[in-house]
Amino acid sequence: MTRATSRSRVRTMLADGTERVRTDTLAGEEPMELRVDGRSLTVTMRTPGHDFDLAAGFLVSEGVLHRPDHVTRIGYGPGVAAGGEATYNIVDVTLAPGVPGPSVTAERRVYTSSSCGICGTSSIEALGRVPQFDRAVPPPSAVFDLSVLLDLPDRLRAEQAMFGRTGGTHAAGLFDATGRLLCVREDVGRHNAVDKVVGWAWREGRLPLTDTVMQVSGRASFELVQKAQMAGIPLLAAVSAPSSLAVDLAEEAGLTLIGFSRTDRLNVYSHPERIRPSTGPDRQPTSA
Amino acid sequence: MTRATSRSRVRTMLADGTERVRTDTLAGEEPMELRVDGRSLTVTMRTPGHDFDLAAGFLVSEGVLHRPDHVTRIGYGPGVAAGGEATYNIVDVTLAPGVPGPSVTAERRVYTSSSCGICGTSSIEALGRVPQFDRAVPPPSAVFDLSVLLDLPDRLRAEQAMFGRTGGTHAAGLFDATGRLLCVREDVGRHNAVDKVVGWAWREGRLPLTDTVMQVSGRASFELVQKAQMAGIPLLAAVSAPSSLAVDLAEEAGLTLIGFSRTDRLNVYSHPERIRPSTGPDRQPTSA
Repeated sequence: MTRATSRSRVRTMLADGTERVRTDTLAGEEPMELRVDGRSLTVTMRTPGHDFDLAAGFLVSEGVLHRPDHVTRIGYGPGVAAGGEATYNIVDVTLAPGVPGPSVTAERRVYTSSSCGICGTSSIEALGRVPQFDRAVPPPSAVFDLSVLLDLPDRLRAEQAMFGRTGGTHAAGLFDATGRLLCVREDVGRHNAVDKVVGWAWREGRLPLTDTVMQVSGRASFELVQKAQMAGIPLLAAVSAPSSLAVDLAEEAGLTLIGFSRTDRLNVYSHPERIRPSTGPDRQPTSA
Repeated sequence: MTRATSRSRVRTMLADGTERVRTDTLAGEEPMELRVDGRSLTVTMRTPGHDFDLAAGFLVSEGVLHRPDHVTRIGYGPGVAAGGEATYNIVDVTLAPGVPGPSVTAERRVYTSSSCGICGTSSIEALGRVPQFDRAVPPPSAVFDLSVLLDLPDRLRAEQAMFGRTGGTHAAGLFDATGRLLCVREDVGRHNAVDKVVGWAWREGRLPLTDTVMQVSGRASFELVQKAQMAGIPLLAAVSAPSSLAVDLAEEAGLTLIGFSRTDRLNVYSHPERIRPSTGPDRQPTSA
């Protein structure tokens, strides 16, 4: 049995008064404590699996890591359940000598100070991270065919094995400009799925993720755009709606933000110059 | 113009190569800093509106408040935008004399200690709040007709005005046992929508919310069950799937957890004794 899912008895009650009791598969959700050099940084509710990538991806998003050699070791902490078995719910990241740890700001998960205030116009700065690459989001040299982008929601859906069994997980998939799948992860938390993909890329030494597109299953929030920015991903596509601040940040960061991506259409909220309209022989215009 | 939504230019690109540029309505997302007695507690990304209810509901979930007289004042803090106008993105809650503030644990959003560890079996305790009511979730004296529960997803959907315009918000609706709507809130964050409803109930002096059901638009996570528990809501219904830990907590807390609620059926994951099957004249069994 894997802790990524679990089994539960469920009673289905129908309008006609009949009932069925059966066993259902649930998406696993457990807390994971992230420690850096032994100090507790945060706790996230996540689906167990790819925990080290989740830890690393989170720290990429926080601006702590971007190269594999920034970390000496990632391992499970000393968590022990009541029965004495290891719990695998504490992950400790040991930074390489000379790599600064998370700031106090990040540690407290409070992104502001009384001097700046938080406001509509300054909130992006107040919440902002500083990408450690020379330029986190590359200039629009990488151009994506619209036809490739239109296929991504179905491609991602086909990879969502856990969602198929539980209906309870989000997914994030990283593709190159030809539409080749590089990495896909599922998690009860949308941010975790993205962090797990970014953590994979960090471990593979692929950051910044120039010339890639991240397709996510849900909506596009400010934080998802920020994670894409910090990983150097030039294009973020969401199946559903973006928020106002997601669009603002994408515009400012030079990132192409797509929402409501469907098989036959998509909405572009910022920087459309990275998308090449479909004009090939298999995509003839069908209307005047 | 309300900051609950904003307008943005969007380019719709179609597979046939045609494009349309129009103005779209986006769900508002801005950071809100919550301060308690002037001290910064947390920042949440929320849709502006009902901010004081959001602050109070969050503190109910944290176990800090449950009666209206636990608070002396709620007001906006001194946030000022670059142009000099007030930002309304800092909310300060002044506790009444003698009401203990949030614990250091809550303040740091780190729910664990090295002594207990976090593990599958002990995680509920490690993450646990202690409801301040004698018994947060009342015994199953309140019984809900299945026919009432089956109507709730459509009832909630009909109230989601912001979702209709933006496609980008979650919703939480509180109903009584007859199906009467008590309060509905929308927000880019699922947790915020629930906190805003709970904060309304706190302000109205209605806690604990005995004999009510909370219907939410998305999935049921551990934290949503915990918020329902802390508000004394005996029944939580989600349109989509629950997680493993959500089911575990609901079972332990004595809370009825419903998932995949549809017009003609729903799944019960814990404590089905609170649901009366439909047997009335308008809900005759249609199969043997």
